[in-house]
Amino acid sequence: MAIYDTVLIVGGGLIGSSIARAARANKAATAILMADKSPSVCSAIERLGIADAVSTNAADLALRADLVILCVPPGQMGAAAKAVIPSMRTGSILSDVGSVKANIINAVSEHLHGGVTFIPAHPIAGTEYSGPEAGFATLFKDKWCILTPEDPDSETASRLAKFWEAMGSNIAFMTPQRHDLVLATTSHVPHLIAYTLVGTAVDMEAVTQSEVVKFSAGGFRDFTRIAASDPVMWRDVFLENRDSVLEVVDRFIEDLSALKRAIRWDDGEVLLEHFSKTRDIRTKIVDAGQDSAAPDFGRPKNSP
Amino acid sequence: MAIYDTVLIVGGGLIGSSIARAARANKAATAILMADKSPSVCSAIERLGIADAVSTNAADLALRADLVILCVPPGQMGAAAKAVIPSMRTGSILSDVGSVKANIINAVSEHLHGGVTFIPAHPIAGTEYSGPEAGFATLFKDKWCILTPEDPDSETASRLAKFWEAMGSNIAFMTPQRHDLVLATTSHVPHLIAYTLVGTAVDMEAVTQSEVVKFSAGGFRDFTRIAASDPVMWRDVFLENRDSVLEVVDRFIEDLSALKRAIRWDDGEVLLEHFSKTRDIRTKIVDAGQDSAAPDFGRPKNSP
Repeated sequence: MAIYDTVLIVGGGLIGSSIARAARANKAATAILMADKSPSVCSAIERLGIADAVSTNAADLALRADLVILCVPPGQMGAAAKAVIPSMRTGSILSDVGSVKANIINAVSEHLHGGVTFIPAHPIAGTEYSGPEAGFATLFKDKWCILTPEDPDSETASRLAKFWEAMGSNIAFMTPQRHDLVLATTSHVPHLIAYTLVGTAVDMEAVTQSEVVKFSAGGFRDFTRIAASDPVMWRDVFLENRDSVLEVVDRFIEDLSALKRAIRWDDGEVLLEHFSKTRDIRTKIVDAGQDSAAPDFGRPKNSP
Repeated sequence: MAIYDTVLIVGGGLIGSSIARAARANKAATAILMADKSPSVCSAIERLGIADAVSTNAADLALRADLVILCVPPGQMGAAAKAVIPSMRTGSILSDVGSVKANIINAVSEHLHGGVTFIPAHPIAGTEYSGPEAGFATLFKDKWCILTPEDPDSETASRLAKFWEAMGSNIAFMTPQRHDLVLATTSHVPHLIAYTLVGTAVDMEAVTQSEVVKFSAGGFRDFTRIAASDPVMWRDVFLENRDSVLEVVDRFIEDLSALKRAIRWDDGEVLLEHFSKTRDIRTKIVDAGQDSAAPDFGRPKNSP
């Protein structure tokens, strides 16, 4: 049985287009509407046939929806909310998929009126590809979706949880502040570091770009996948979650300086102790079903 | 036709045991001998049936070999060379697979006598697993193997190149110093950074380990794979390639500080410009056949 009657997805990128596919495949909604400011994205959505109606104007479709999900970059959430809320029905739900919660809640809340409830959400899922063609119906399966509603026990929050569960996700409730610190650690700072390292390698005058490409299988290529993620979205994430990101980055730089010092002073024991500790967490992630146990993420053995 | 008659592989870990399998599968050698100081590794090699003879004493087997490959951690190369060289035949070849070249050449060279030629090598291949069970015959296929001989035009160097080509590798020649700087960039520093970040996340008091595990799909899990690599080997790599590693780490910290500053001062343009640049190198790596174009490295979509 469908959890919502009509869902409007605002933003037809990787996440928005995957929600459209997943909601239909899992019958989580009866009708799926999509809006995107870009006419070419709207054409792609029509061609892909993943929505029952498509428009460049979200407000035109909002009246018909009992759930509106904003799937735009974090920095555009306020504007998207402002555009769509005045057309939303009393009793309908507004949600989002932003990787940052506290700042998005602030930006959206100033446009809310009494009849619309905002339930912030963040599915921890994605790939390094962007756009409507990159989405797929199983993107959220066995992944976590974090909800940060004001009242986790409300009927509105548990209904949105059921919608994500119907698409295969596990649900966690958190405060927006805790979400932003946890995700700075497990997602935002890892991305910032990957972007930085790839830039450092490309800028080394003493090493040619062709050498970097050729010999990337030694570890570097893993970072390039993450550093190929959507630039606009990640710019917004770092700016909108500034305090937590800077806090975790500073911890990271401290720890890197300690290992640098151990290398400089030939202190093998410090290095060995550190490297042994980090092996353990990999096992836990694989055991928790959050990654493949296959060597090299299961990359094909015979051809890269 | 076999490139060598009898190959002795000293060290039965991921790389050594993969060479044994690959050399046999591709008929690159007529007979394959293996030695490992650990009796339990020797038992595993016998059980796996990947060698024609196995011993805990490399010197006992060295007399029969026309190629001896040292597959031990970088810090143990000198001792392994010292143990095996006195038993090697005049005209035979000594090689290695170490991720560092200049320091290993120094350590090995002091034990060389006139009858043995050392041709240093480094196959850019591996997984996060260790030990004889982790090896497989196609590990080197379509991967680069870097040789750093004194004379790249010598018959001895080109014969070793043919041996690696027979196992599916592409060959590059380089000076040891250039190798060490290029690999510091594409492999050593990426590993150091992954080890650091995983440690930082585990040590955050404000974020529980269970949260780090649960929400690792946001980017962090990629780092944990690299940080699960063999601790002893990587300790040795950082200590043996100290100067190049510290040079690249310092560049990385400079670049990270610049991005930190852009975040602190809300400078979205600097971030966007940087993140757009790094996307390009991913495309080049995929185009060069050095990684899979599949989203998320081709991780299974339906179950992690």
